[in-house]
Amino acid sequence: MTIPWETLKQQLGDKLRFGESIRNAHAKDESYHEPHVPDAVAYPEETEDVVALAQFAHEHRIPLVAYGAGSGLEGQAIPVRGGISVDFSRMNRILEVRPDDFLVCVEPGVTRQQLNDALRPYGLMFPVDPGANASLGGMAATNASGTTAVRYGPMKANVRKLEVVLADGRVVEIGTLAAKSSSGYNLVELFVGSEGTLGLFTKLWLRVYGVPEATLAASAEFQTVGEAVNAVCMLIGSGLQLTRCELVTKPYIEIINRQFDTDYAPAPTLFLELSGSQAAVQADMATVEDLLRDAGAVRVATVMDERARQKLWHARHNAAYALMRTYPGLSHLSTDVCVPMSKLPEAVDVAEMWIERLGIRGGIVGHVGDGNFHVSLMVNPSDPDDLGRAYELSHHLVEYAISVGGTCTGEHGVGLGKMKYQKKEHGEALTLMQDIKRLLDPDDLLNPGKLVDGIA
Amino acid sequence: MTIPWETLKQQLGDKLRFGESIRNAHAKDESYHEPHVPDAVAYPEETEDVVALAQFAHEHRIPLVAYGAGSGLEGQAIPVRGGISVDFSRMNRILEVRPDDFLVCVEPGVTRQQLNDALRPYGLMFPVDPGANASLGGMAATNASGTTAVRYGPMKANVRKLEVVLADGRVVEIGTLAAKSSSGYNLVELFVGSEGTLGLFTKLWLRVYGVPEATLAASAEFQTVGEAVNAVCMLIGSGLQLTRCELVTKPYIEIINRQFDTDYAPAPTLFLELSGSQAAVQADMATVEDLLRDAGAVRVATVMDERARQKLWHARHNAAYALMRTYPGLSHLSTDVCVPMSKLPEAVDVAEMWIERLGIRGGIVGHVGDGNFHVSLMVNPSDPDDLGRAYELSHHLVEYAISVGGTCTGEHGVGLGKMKYQKKEHGEALTLMQDIKRLLDPDDLLNPGKLVDGIA
Repeated sequence: MTIPWETLKQQLGDKLRFGESIRNAHAKDESYHEPHVPDAVAYPEETEDVVALAQFAHEHRIPLVAYGAGSGLEGQAIPVRGGISVDFSRMNRILEVRPDDFLVCVEPGVTRQQLNDALRPYGLMFPVDPGANASLGGMAATNASGTTAVRYGPMKANVRKLEVVLADGRVVEIGTLAAKSSSGYNLVELFVGSEGTLGLFTKLWLRVYGVPEATLAASAEFQTVGEAVNAVCMLIGSGLQLTRCELVTKPYIEIINRQFDTDYAPAPTLFLELSGSQAAVQADMATVEDLLRDAGAVRVATVMDERARQKLWHARHNAAYALMRTYPGLSHLSTDVCVPMSKLPEAVDVAEMWIERLGIRGGIVGHVGDGNFHVSLMVNPSDPDDLGRAYELSHHLVEYAISVGGTCTGEHGVGLGKMKYQKKEHGEALTLMQDIKRLLDPDDLLNPGKLVDGIA
Repeated sequence: MTIPWETLKQQLGDKLRFGESIRNAHAKDESYHEPHVPDAVAYPEETEDVVALAQFAHEHRIPLVAYGAGSGLEGQAIPVRGGISVDFSRMNRILEVRPDDFLVCVEPGVTRQQLNDALRPYGLMFPVDPGANASLGGMAATNASGTTAVRYGPMKANVRKLEVVLADGRVVEIGTLAAKSSSGYNLVELFVGSEGTLGLFTKLWLRVYGVPEATLAASAEFQTVGEAVNAVCMLIGSGLQLTRCELVTKPYIEIINRQFDTDYAPAPTLFLELSGSQAAVQADMATVEDLLRDAGAVRVATVMDERARQKLWHARHNAAYALMRTYPGLSHLSTDVCVPMSKLPEAVDVAEMWIERLGIRGGIVGHVGDGNFHVSLMVNPSDPDDLGRAYELSHHLVEYAISVGGTCTGEHGVGLGKMKYQKKEHGEALTLMQDIKRLLDPDDLLNPGKLVDGIA
């Protein structure tokens, strides 16, 4: 079948591109899944352009695959069956800031940092931080989270309303601007995390927050990962509200020290953050110190000044880059299971055991307040054995996580890498998900071959 | 068609009842919607009983309507097309408490207070508090919330996993025990708030929280509702974490004073609560006092001792009962819109204007941190004019709320009373909801005639 591209070209003009370099640039994301070149790349500038794309795709049975910042880690943006890569980078306007409602309305191509720059004059911030300067549309599509989820939740807790273009070109608004609602079905959460398989987001209304008056940080070293995790349980159980709560294991600490000129003791270490009013945070930090020592911390260092705090989080945030610099020429691959808190020490044991047994280069960092952790692995992507060992480690971790009631992905999403675990994790519920996919996208045109695609 | 009840009776024995008084007791909830008597009442004791009910209902095309504690305010439990009322009161076991995971697994008939009693020895609590001692299954079905939602969110933020019996008798588990996940579609939120129209919950895994070390309260009087709401915006914008944040308007304060021997000044009053570590809460309360005074509070009274705090919240929680005692012989009816914060002063103006114009007896209380407020009305349910005026007030408020991007129900749910606003609020998205209903319940047997039922 010949696709009458000229029809679409007439509608979209230079917003539709076919050049090889542009198409190649949309063949992959930051993952190590095999690239696949789209037939065309579209740069919509408004909702109507997306509607035109959907109508054309619907009429001619062409896949549409959303593309945000390309920072995905599981191949969500790879157009595995060709079609049109819909690059939202030109839909990058912040349409409305409503400071009194703690709400913003943005287009999907707005990035996290762009939004925070725009919010700063209002004393507001958008807290979800996956590390990369991802697009907010992409973050919503994968239900991204990161270091601050322990306080502010993942994307699904912070998307209040969406404008979505459906597979047949219909435009729907789902959700309201109210802080809570018991009206109708909760469709916003159904679309958040759907990885472009149910619809394309064209506007997002997001919850934003006042910047706390004060933020303090601390690091605490433990003899074992188990002790560190127990300490976190005690902190959370005490009703204290942590803003960040990260675990870095010993090998990773050594790498960080080498790369960032820090002198953390080589031990499982918690990096913590509290925020709120100046007086409250100082008072809470004293409580945190006491609790950490009671829980067996070998050393607790509180970080009271802002420069030192920035340095601490710089080290944590850039841990993966430290690893990359340690192994030049290799590429980075990350696992992403999330388990019930009580299973975290055992999960880390499982990870360390397989790292040693398989002889792979990697370090463990974890959003320990959520039970979510990553093994950052350095692999040679052109060496099938090396990649194979990395996948084997990930496989053992996923099997463990699902066996204890956890999930194969805490924040990176399913994409291509975690499709094979959907049946095991969701059981009969996967059938429901596939039914919903068929209902909303009967011709399988929206990011086909992903997420709940029929792998039984 | 004759229904072969004896087949079902053989399976369920005395768990299936036909007595008139039992059936009459399941004909209504606490709302003023017209009762409808079910053909039978079932008291399942385990998931398999619910499966038997669903299979029988499916085979013989009989409606199944879930019944929790009967404390609903919008008629969700009324079997408007007859069939079987499924009373979950015998499925009231707390199946598992996992303190280290901050999780519990309960059956749907467990009540909020029952759960909190069981959690107390662990130093844990389940914070969602709709006022009534509702069943947790019912609370999940309506996405209930209440005074603590400003900190802990509504039910959908606190249900992590569900076991659901579908219309055809299939049992699915949706969600995981992990604190966050980006795996598959977010079906938990789709089922939470679905009011028994998509499936029957048979197990719920809920998030629980450590009891904070200290809790302090304050009240603050303002000259106008607008000033009070602006003060709340300042508090939230400062990054302070409020645990409760309630507004009571002047007429209601007068009623509370009369009934509870309190001496609040007759003015729009905020009731606030902070919780956390002792030192932090005391420090924050000082900040709160300053901010409230800066925002124009005429008087701020902090409540430092526990008895006084209990008294304060007793008055707020029982405000509706104070109103009832003020108008003996009349019945209570509550509106429930939720608007973006900035629209709250105008919404309260609209409410006060219509209260006066229609000449009805009522007071306004609001979960002002969420933009959700109720007009509590005292009506004579056997006087159509009186009821008509109450519905007229509710109608004007809903129209206003939807016009400013809010919702027709913040926490009571749709049931029968808010069905007529679903099209206006959700627009084309209602079609999606109806499609999902048809997908999951093609024979329209699960709570038929509710929520998204085809009223265009």
